[in-house]
Amino acid sequence: MMDLGGLQTILGDRLVTSEADRTQHGRNETYYPTTPPDAVAYPETTEEVSAILAHCHAQGIPVTACGAASSLEGQHLAIRGGISLDMSRMARVLSVNAEDLTCEVQPGLTRKRLNEELRDTGLFFPVDPGADASIGGMAATRASGTTAVRYGTMRDNVLALEAVMADGTVIRTGSRARKSSTGYDLTHLLIGSEGTLGIITALTLRLSGIPEAVTAATCRFPSVAAAVDCVILTIQSGLPVARIELLDEVMVRGFNLYSEAGLPELPHLFLEFHGTPAGVAEQAETFAALAADFGAEGIATATKAEDRTKLWTMRHDAHYASAALGPGKRICATDVCVPISRLAGAVVWAQEECVRLDLTSTIVGHVGDGNFHCGICVDPDDMGEMARVEDFTHRLAEKALALGGTVSGEHGIGIGKQGFMDAEHGPAVAYMRAVKTAFDPRGILNPGKLLPEAQ
Amino acid sequence: MMDLGGLQTILGDRLVTSEADRTQHGRNETYYPTTPPDAVAYPETTEEVSAILAHCHAQGIPVTACGAASSLEGQHLAIRGGISLDMSRMARVLSVNAEDLTCEVQPGLTRKRLNEELRDTGLFFPVDPGADASIGGMAATRASGTTAVRYGTMRDNVLALEAVMADGTVIRTGSRARKSSTGYDLTHLLIGSEGTLGIITALTLRLSGIPEAVTAATCRFPSVAAAVDCVILTIQSGLPVARIELLDEVMVRGFNLYSEAGLPELPHLFLEFHGTPAGVAEQAETFAALAADFGAEGIATATKAEDRTKLWTMRHDAHYASAALGPGKRICATDVCVPISRLAGAVVWAQEECVRLDLTSTIVGHVGDGNFHCGICVDPDDMGEMARVEDFTHRLAEKALALGGTVSGEHGIGIGKQGFMDAEHGPAVAYMRAVKTAFDPRGILNPGKLLPEAQ
Repeated sequence: MMDLGGLQTILGDRLVTSEADRTQHGRNETYYPTTPPDAVAYPETTEEVSAILAHCHAQGIPVTACGAASSLEGQHLAIRGGISLDMSRMARVLSVNAEDLTCEVQPGLTRKRLNEELRDTGLFFPVDPGADASIGGMAATRASGTTAVRYGTMRDNVLALEAVMADGTVIRTGSRARKSSTGYDLTHLLIGSEGTLGIITALTLRLSGIPEAVTAATCRFPSVAAAVDCVILTIQSGLPVARIELLDEVMVRGFNLYSEAGLPELPHLFLEFHGTPAGVAEQAETFAALAADFGAEGIATATKAEDRTKLWTMRHDAHYASAALGPGKRICATDVCVPISRLAGAVVWAQEECVRLDLTSTIVGHVGDGNFHCGICVDPDDMGEMARVEDFTHRLAEKALALGGTVSGEHGIGIGKQGFMDAEHGPAVAYMRAVKTAFDPRGILNPGKLLPEAQ
Repeated sequence: MMDLGGLQTILGDRLVTSEADRTQHGRNETYYPTTPPDAVAYPETTEEVSAILAHCHAQGIPVTACGAASSLEGQHLAIRGGISLDMSRMARVLSVNAEDLTCEVQPGLTRKRLNEELRDTGLFFPVDPGADASIGGMAATRASGTTAVRYGTMRDNVLALEAVMADGTVIRTGSRARKSSTGYDLTHLLIGSEGTLGIITALTLRLSGIPEAVTAATCRFPSVAAAVDCVILTIQSGLPVARIELLDEVMVRGFNLYSEAGLPELPHLFLEFHGTPAGVAEQAETFAALAADFGAEGIATATKAEDRTKLWTMRHDAHYASAALGPGKRICATDVCVPISRLAGAVVWAQEECVRLDLTSTIVGHVGDGNFHCGICVDPDDMGEMARVEDFTHRLAEKALALGGTVSGEHGIGIGKQGFMDAEHGPAVAYMRAVKTAFDPRGILNPGKLLPEAQ
């Protein structure tokens, strides 16, 4: 039996063992079974996180951090029991250095709340994974999203971290300087480590200026291949698009159902341009000329903020719109990322495989990065369908690797893709394991995640 | 005595022990004493590097990689003996994927040669540290340079690596996909590790399109503070400058001596704008208006390639131009990087300290990143002057930390700044050491570098 008494001493009534709270922390956005932790801890300070980890390290209690619980590969599920470390009470903006285009925040802050707090500064935090994820969770899973093609991913927008390591040691990595060449890059080692190497307790973020002018554009294409070929040429031509999103015809059907979008059921691109008024106009024109060569029709632009918000809200509801295509089903969301020259082939292959396997799946993607998602409708109780979904996701991941890509562009590994780690990384996995063992010798941090079980 | 016989079996006459070759590999660009290795190895394949490391691992022979030997903190010096692993015969472009804006190269390739080979593709590799460094060395030291303000550093422009680890194991990190969230970021762990964690044997690089239009601009300011304040506002205003370089009045004197530049001896900014013809014109105008507010005079632009080349060649000769100020002396080149809001204070402080300590030092910097260099003239045989130089570099590093920055923006640690690792990174150093021990338990990779000696 785990000794939760010591944790109660640290946290008082902020260590919760009620079934409601435990169940809530066991839920997830995808199809993994609900997996409640033994208890939920609500720390309010770095010192408390340190004390919690020191205790759990001593007692061998698993610790799984939880932000907004919007991860898609089960990263926040306490699959080996122990505590769910809920970071939602560490959600403050610690400082904004507008002159340096940086801010420091606590991990539980969500990205929408951060951008609300930044509004008066003329700055914003550009990484936008769709869900209103926590900043700490976004860093821990190396999130990206619709704007990565222009602004980069969490990898590019986190300058420094404060983290509590397995035994309770508090470290700081990086600084507010924009670059450094002093020592091993622990910042990037922690980003994407899915809570298995340390618990992020503060983040120094790089901010961007709110663009003077923003224009959104939409258009439809005769085929997915035509749309993707247009994207490839757009990227190769150096057009600095801020977003360039593909929605296949199935996804459009979902939006029509869920958001009453009223769009022709053809593949679409949704774009956004950021810059000066003259600059965005030039970009939109250049794109329109390019797109016409690929048979684009119905090119429409939106400059009003409310129209753009409507567009991107619809886009961000892709998960729910996918679900609308299979009433009563859940969504298995999977993503891969390939070199952009291989993107058309990969997307068309995925569509054909879904038809072959009798699966309903939307395809939507941050195609400027070569990254796309399938949202497959699945009844977790239908063993046959589940097996076909697994077959599909497995083969899609293998396809991405065969094309020189990666089994996940942004959802991560969690418990969903551990089986591909050896295929993707080969002998490098042993070095990842060596880092894990060195940093967390007792294996208390998010056990059972990311790394495949040792043979 | 080290068993070099095994290495001779692997390399034949490409294991060289002649004094000339050893001395050449013991030299450096700065003021560190010449430190010859016991032998120089010239591998030609990854398999040979693997065989060399397996042997050295077994025999406990130190291995220090050497690219173009242009590192500034002694990174390539074999201070514990053993072999210098000269990568200059692994210098091929392995592939160019123009459609994906990527290429794969061997580590010994220099950046100028790479850009020559890329010329016909319309693409270029933007990272430009000045010296014609090797790409492998640039990655190993996390180099950056004049274009980092627009294109990022090596951290941002290396997608994937092949590396040989201490025991000879060959790993691959990353892929040709533009992003990934699968597993620990070993790519970034190796970048900046100064050859202490593994030997880079191939690099997948992110390329950029050669801009349609390029304009350079120069202007002078009444004071360094005015110039830096102008830089700060330029960056904050979001102007996408491709280069923005500060040269203080002492540096300008050096250029006048070394390059017969004929510039007024006042602080200058050198800039470059990349974009469409209309875009660069707009940028140059915006900058000129901004600069005028800070008292800038003599704003001149250059659009012809030959004029721009002349400008940047002069800038890249800063090291030699600094040396011209102290005939017969060597240059102690040191750099720091601070949050941009603290830049003016840091630069002015450095100038005043040099005056106080009776040192002749140029200041030149990639000021858009908050990064600047001092090139201090020093006679290594003058103990008093050496002590004052050490005092200055020490205090400058401490000043950078006090301002929330880092003790090196791009030169790295090597043997010059190990003493600051604890001050900059605190308890995080123990985690760096844990990585080192896990990856290189026998300590054969560039021993004595980067990490401070354990207490």
